[in-house]
Amino acid sequence: MTRGNEIRIIHYGLGPIGIEAARLAARKANLRIVGAIDIAEDKAGRDLGSLLGLPEKMGIKVSGDPADLFSKVEADVVVHTTSSFLERIYSQLAEIVAAGLCVISSAEELLYPRLQHPDLAAKLDQVAQKYNVAILGTGVNPGFVLDTLPLILSSVCEEAQKIEAYRVVDASTRREPLQRKIGAGMSESEFRERVARKELGHIGLIESLALVAEGLNWQIDNIDETIDPVIAQRSIKTRYVAVSRGQVAGIHHVARGLRAGQELILLDLKMYIGAENPHDRIVITGNPALQATITGGVAGDQATAAMLINLVPIIKAAPPGLRTMLDIPLPRFRS
Amino acid sequence: MTRGNEIRIIHYGLGPIGIEAARLAARKANLRIVGAIDIAEDKAGRDLGSLLGLPEKMGIKVSGDPADLFSKVEADVVVHTTSSFLERIYSQLAEIVAAGLCVISSAEELLYPRLQHPDLAAKLDQVAQKYNVAILGTGVNPGFVLDTLPLILSSVCEEAQKIEAYRVVDASTRREPLQRKIGAGMSESEFRERVARKELGHIGLIESLALVAEGLNWQIDNIDETIDPVIAQRSIKTRYVAVSRGQVAGIHHVARGLRAGQELILLDLKMYIGAENPHDRIVITGNPALQATITGGVAGDQATAAMLINLVPIIKAAPPGLRTMLDIPLPRFRS
Repeated sequence: MTRGNEIRIIHYGLGPIGIEAARLAARKANLRIVGAIDIAEDKAGRDLGSLLGLPEKMGIKVSGDPADLFSKVEADVVVHTTSSFLERIYSQLAEIVAAGLCVISSAEELLYPRLQHPDLAAKLDQVAQKYNVAILGTGVNPGFVLDTLPLILSSVCEEAQKIEAYRVVDASTRREPLQRKIGAGMSESEFRERVARKELGHIGLIESLALVAEGLNWQIDNIDETIDPVIAQRSIKTRYVAVSRGQVAGIHHVARGLRAGQELILLDLKMYIGAENPHDRIVITGNPALQATITGGVAGDQATAAMLINLVPIIKAAPPGLRTMLDIPLPRFRS
Repeated sequence: MTRGNEIRIIHYGLGPIGIEAARLAARKANLRIVGAIDIAEDKAGRDLGSLLGLPEKMGIKVSGDPADLFSKVEADVVVHTTSSFLERIYSQLAEIVAAGLCVISSAEELLYPRLQHPDLAAKLDQVAQKYNVAILGTGVNPGFVLDTLPLILSSVCEEAQKIEAYRVVDASTRREPLQRKIGAGMSESEFRERVARKELGHIGLIESLALVAEGLNWQIDNIDETIDPVIAQRSIKTRYVAVSRGQVAGIHHVARGLRAGQELILLDLKMYIGAENPHDRIVITGNPALQATITGGVAGDQATAAMLINLVPIIKAAPPGLRTMLDIPLPRFRS
């Protein structure tokens, strides 16, 4: 039963981002958590409240069976945080949508799924329209600092010739999986081997670039990507990893959007242990030119959870179909 | 006749902002100027191209009679830049809308017309819905730096307790009317007398504040406004005005949104001759906290024209009615 304007949500995926989002949702007066899903053996069956570390049980048992949960619980929106990759989550999303529920997801490839999976994107759009619900992929990176923010800053430009966005993250402030995923503590040769095997690199960077290009109506004929190690200049130890001088401290991932060899969009991401002066910076070459800086940078995991939860009311009200950050109303905090 | 996705626009008002917007529109492949309106005797009847300072005539004669023009020319969107005040423009807007045309306007009060003119706002919404067109007030200030930008930055916050936005403009870089309107060259007593007669002050600041409050769903029970002079610490001369040391160099206009005496929103605008380090800065007290700075600040007149023109395709596609920056898709430059 809905009370007033309350939106009923189900959390699907209870990894670090899912947990953070659920904790936030539990504090929101306009949202009511009515279900939770995670297939991990140490999570399914537990009370959500205890899994979130809340002082009291919530009376919501984490389900390992989405179809069963959807058949038993009425809800409006699913907050989806299971995987980065569209091929892995496609059947999850199709099942959610077929249950008549909107989806807001942190899956990086879902920010702009048409780039790498145009067929799956088209199918998702069809099925969402059929069941009259909206699907959106978002977050902070991708989802905000390297795509949505540069786009909205461009709105004050009469002309724009080039968009650059830089993000520097001090990975030592982040969770363990992120510190591992950027290659911290590896030798340079191991790092490069794993890049060659596509095991390292920030998921979503090229989707950010494609979203910017579509937003500006810029035709890009080539996306050039480089992934290099940032080498530690001194030994550093975090709670999770030890990096010696000369080892890999993290990753420098760059995506360039080119037209006829000319660089129109540059997205430059550095995430490494011990990064000094972390920040986000947008530079627009245009008229007027523009340079904006977020001191310290937008905090990753919290900000992603915030974006997901802040957009729940917006995605519930959005026109049906596969949506992007380009066609929803202004994202913002809602008290 | 529309060619492809071309949008046909009419420029209504050919003051500095209207001229800048029309010059920009003339360069845009997706827009076609099909008419222009200004009632000033030195403008009506002239060819728009010569009025814009373009090398060639455009074959568009500036009309002094909106009703006549609307009856003769098919168009989609009117770019409206005649006055700041809703009471003065209401009949203009109603006439445009009744001709079946969307409106995008730089009128400052139209950013959030419900604040000072709830009845007129309700009537505008009704008439826009009746004629199936959308109306939007926007710009850069109000419209972007002190409202839309802080709102979208808040989207990455799990909690937000306070929003502050600061804008410092070096008025010596701006057009003559703006330099006069901020009181440059006045004595402090004259400045204060004119503030008391409501002849000085930035139009739209309280509308920005109301938009932020609505966007965040924050109840505000009081808007506190102060307008003070910035006193010149040294003599300065611009192309238009001379300011001696001790005279007024410009304006410091502050709006505070309060609830139960607590300051939730602070908008702080300084526009004065010789301002050092012009910038825009947003500070969000929250979790995560956030501080963003636009170095040099967003350039006023150009940016306002850019926002109007960049939003033309968006307002044409928007649902009918009186819209705000809260409920349109992501503003952005369109090539």
